Amino acid sequence: MPEELEKVFDEIQKLIETKNIRELRIITEDMNDADIADIIEELEPEGRVILFRALRKDMAAEVFAHLISDTKEALVSQLTAPELGRIVDELFLDDAADLVEELPADVVKRILESASPETRRGINQLLQYQEDSAGSIMTTEYISLRPDMNVEQSFKHIREVGTDKETLYTCYVTDPKGILKGVVTVRTMLLSQYADMIGDIMTDTNLISVNTNDDREKVTELFQKYDFMALPVVDSENHLVGIVTVDDAMEVLEEESTEDFHKMAAILPIDEPYLSMGVLELAKKRVIWLMVLMISATFSGQIITHYQSVFAALPALIASIPMLMDTGGNAGSQSSTLVIRGIAVGELKIYDALKVLLKELRVGLLVGGGLAVVNFFYKYAMSGDLPLSITVGISLFATVIFAQTIGGMLPLLAKALGFDPALMASPIVTTIVDAGSLTVYFMTAGRIMHL
Amino acid sequence: MPEELEKVFDEIQKLIETKNIRELRIITEDMNDADIADIIEELEPEGRVILFRALRKDMAAEVFAHLISDTKEALVSQLTAPELGRIVDELFLDDAADLVEELPADVVKRILESASPETRRGINQLLQYQEDSAGSIMTTEYISLRPDMNVEQSFKHIREVGTDKETLYTCYVTDPKGILKGVVTVRTMLLSQYADMIGDIMTDTNLISVNTNDDREKVTELFQKYDFMALPVVDSENHLVGIVTVDDAMEVLEEESTEDFHKMAAILPIDEPYLSMGVLELAKKRVIWLMVLMISATFSGQIITHYQSVFAALPALIASIPMLMDTGGNAGSQSSTLVIRGIAVGELKIYDALKVLLKELRVGLLVGGGLAVVNFFYKYAMSGDLPLSITVGISLFATVIFAQTIGGMLPLLAKALGFDPALMASPIVTTIVDAGSLTVYFMTAGRIMHL
Repeated sequence: MPEELEKVFDEIQKLIETKNIRELRIITEDMNDADIADIIEELEPEGRVILFRALRKDMAAEVFAHLISDTKEALVSQLTAPELGRIVDELFLDDAADLVEELPADVVKRILESASPETRRGINQLLQYQEDSAGSIMTTEYISLRPDMNVEQSFKHIREVGTDKETLYTCYVTDPKGILKGVVTVRTMLLSQYADMIGDIMTDTNLISVNTNDDREKVTELFQKYDFMALPVVDSENHLVGIVTVDDAMEVLEEESTEDFHKMAAILPIDEPYLSMGVLELAKKRVIWLMVLMISATFSGQIITHYQSVFAALPALIASIPMLMDTGGNAGSQSSTLVIRGIAVGELKIYDALKVLLKELRVGLLVGGGLAVVNFFYKYAMSGDLPLSITVGISLFATVIFAQTIGGMLPLLAKALGFDPALMASPIVTTIVDAGSLTVYFMTAGRIMHL
Repeated sequence: MPEELEKVFDEIQKLIETKNIRELRIITEDMNDADIADIIEELEPEGRVILFRALRKDMAAEVFAHLISDTKEALVSQLTAPELGRIVDELFLDDAADLVEELPADVVKRILESASPETRRGINQLLQYQEDSAGSIMTTEYISLRPDMNVEQSFKHIREVGTDKETLYTCYVTDPKGILKGVVTVRTMLLSQYADMIGDIMTDTNLISVNTNDDREKVTELFQKYDFMALPVVDSENHLVGIVTVDDAMEVLEEESTEDFHKMAAILPIDEPYLSMGVLELAKKRVIWLMVLMISATFSGQIITHYQSVFAALPALIASIPMLMDTGGNAGSQSSTLVIRGIAVGELKIYDALKVLLKELRVGLLVGGGLAVVNFFYKYAMSGDLPLSITVGISLFATVIFAQTIGGMLPLLAKALGFDPALMASPIVTTIVDAGSLTVYFMTAGRIMHL
């Protein structure tokens, strides 16, 4: 917590102890929702309810949306049904739907029973969309205009209905059947004359929209490409059903990155904060891939067993195995990371495979060559064994080139086959490269040192 | 390129061949800037200039901002000085400053000479801020209002000056000395009466702003916490000097994630697209860490040499080394990834270290235990060697716990010492864990099998 907030925190805690609701209301009135949420997270359960009840009604809903799941759940259990109903009714519909998705079934039941029928209908409508679809991250609270309104009438309309719309900066123009006809921003309206007709100033060609079933990654891509404030979501007949706002897109972007980080470290996707995950749950997310990779790694062990006669003749060979394996793994995961990230930000496409292959081969020649030369002199200086130093150098050179090519190609191959490129990261690449580099190593040793 | 865009592309190519400028102008008029930029990227150099010259002046600037560096550079060399001047003058100042930063010095000289003195001054002002500071990503083109204006006057003012402001949805209220006094959104103005005074409806307490020298990561954190559309940037005396808009914050967020992905794979930060990087440059970004890690890995080799007598007595021990090293590395990088990402999204703080330690220890007990049991039976079924299977099982158990603890603690330690946690990822963790797991392995073997 920043220092200024600490001070307010102390003050609020005192007011809670003396149950001074009036002062709590005054002090929170000017605060930011996210800051109040931070303070609530730090309070004891009894303090939380007191502070929460002191908040202005509309503010309480906003603050509630900022809390983490555990706190929401605890707070819900302490509030009365009418209190809950008021909060849910005040929430933006997409936040309310998120709430329903993240809380346990019995809590959800209490919440839905307390909400107004209209809110309940809205939430249920949003819940029907598949996870990770555009429909699941949209809100149905947008402003729609008609082409035959002028700017002045539109502003009047916005003033009437705007209060509970998530954005009023981008307005959508629909025909009487609800089919999306155009988009007009408040920017355009402000820069036009009051008498200008919406139909004349709206954008009605090359309209960009997504379908409710589109993947939410498509939504973030469009936001990044076109710098939108909001994006319309339509059904299969082009009826406008909702919008995604830029702040929600930014959140998805962050979640997608986190998902990629996890996948690349061989962890099953986790969408809860680390500290609120149970130990058993965390272990489950991690053990599966470790198990698969552990079994795969025994394959490298078999290669070693196969060449037992080689290292039995020269035990000094064993000492370079960790260096070869680690360097191969590191070189391979550099390449796979660059390519996976390139695909994720939309810069690399499947048809770039040949370019990537050629580039990785050339970089591999340079990097592998450099490392091999340094390693050769280092090894020779330490051991004085020329054939051994040459063997290690050549194997390292081949390993790095092999690792970079595999690391660069696997994510693109995965993409081409319809799998997630992020799975082809360090862990899998390392396992494959290990087997390759050990084979090369023992074969080279056999040739050069006639073992 | 999406299919619809392909069609337009073919049409545009035909128009370029016949030099039909008039039709090119008409066809592009309704298109989106980002789509036109995509098409320009695909064209031959001669075609690019023809299409670019056919664009409406303000559109040309927007399209230009969307191009990748190489294309910008090529295009600049084909345009005349007055043409360049017009583009730079039309660009938003922050885009112009970015342009100056990414292009070679001689190209920049041509551009700055062609721009108007006012644009030149604006660009130079932005360039003085340090890389990665809030100042370096802000724009100076914002709308400022005075507290004694009413809503109607404000709308009139916005209509007059709004055209080249990057956002007009968030307006800043300053006193005559330029000191930031408040913020008022167009949303608030639209939901107020025309006669309401800005001073009465603006937010003037708990104003959130950043200093020009603040790190740009602080900017993205504030955007994510508070869901802003724009954030004011002030100097040390609280004079408003610029704003950061949400689309730029989103771009920074993406860049910071990419930087973390690269660092975590032991690659020096790369801020250019993969395909436009030269081979030599790419090799340089990658070889340094590989070299450091390669030398460090020889330490594991020394451990092996130290225990030469142990595996000379039982060569079958060697076969499990890859599995132990890989599993240790994978388990460690799972933990470090979770913690690094937790720190990056602001969820984990240094004071959470004890919680993380306890959690990783408990998860390690479960995961390590599970893997060890499976491995024991697998190994025993394959080899029929009980002492060997017990040795491998115990070592694996110890390795996983050690790896997860190290992986979870190192990023927090780095953070506490003021280093970047992302550096404490898979490559370094693996190197450390290797040394630990090999030591445990040989020591256990020595004890259990009396080697």
